[in-house]
Amino acid sequence: MTRPAHLATIEELSPDDCRDYLRSARIGRLAVHTDGHPDIFPVSYVFDSDSIIFRTEPGTKLSAASMARVALETDQIDMQAGTAWSVVVKGMAFDITDAIDPTSQRARAARVDSAFVGDDARWVRISGLEISGRRLSLIEPSTTTG
Amino acid sequence: MTRPAHLATIEELSPDDCRDYLRSARIGRLAVHTDGHPDIFPVSYVFDSDSIIFRTEPGTKLSAASMARVALETDQIDMQAGTAWSVVVKGMAFDITDAIDPTSQRARAARVDSAFVGDDARWVRISGLEISGRRLSLIEPSTTTG
Repeated sequence: MTRPAHLATIEELSPDDCRDYLRSARIGRLAVHTDGHPDIFPVSYVFDSDSIIFRTEPGTKLSAASMARVALETDQIDMQAGTAWSVVVKGMAFDITDAIDPTSQRARAARVDSAFVGDDARWVRISGLEISGRRLSLIEPSTTTG
Repeated sequence: MTRPAHLATIEELSPDDCRDYLRSARIGRLAVHTDGHPDIFPVSYVFDSDSIIFRTEPGTKLSAASMARVALETDQIDMQAGTAWSVVVKGMAFDITDAIDPTSQRARAARVDSAFVGDDARWVRISGLEISGRRLSLIEPSTTTG
């Protein structure tokens, strides 16, 4: 593979680095599979005790995200600076709004930003996470297109 | 539904507004379904002729995104200002790297930012788009959590 114009370094992140990035971010995009088609929507989340916790309105998205395999991605991409990182977590999502086990109760104490959701928003926890991430940087930052 | 603390207005975007937002952004997140699990990764894309065009390295992600149903989302979320928009496109992804039809040739002339991919990156086009989007704004911007 040749990269004459823009040489990029691509680094697989360690699990610890991935977790640091997950804690540093608040907005992620959740991928679900619903009606035979991938769908995706932004969520405001908290990463706590190796779980992703977010709130969502009752309805289609929740149905797709509850008791289902999901993937959540968060990233920071700066084309000008030529730097980017991206972390993806895969796991099972559960609606824990009415769950009375200690783990769920603890999750519902998380400081999830709920500014964009109503009071009847449900709580969702993603657990059993498989976490991976990459960090990229250009040797010679550029905004050249090609 | 009551929202005593933060009253948000949620507006479904018109198709034209969705297209304007798609043109205004360069980074999207692509959701694919691979090995029975949703996956998601950021891409640098161009929206042209009602198609999404991006480049990606040969390998797993391309396999998942080629000849497959995918969803691409782009957004801008400002928790401080209390404003957000998000546009999702759903369609079929095709590897058009070696395609000789005029539409594919035109797509490969798109000014896709390829800074983060190598010279052997493949071209992918998503067509047959189903486009939807929402714009949210808080009546009373707040960073309060809870």
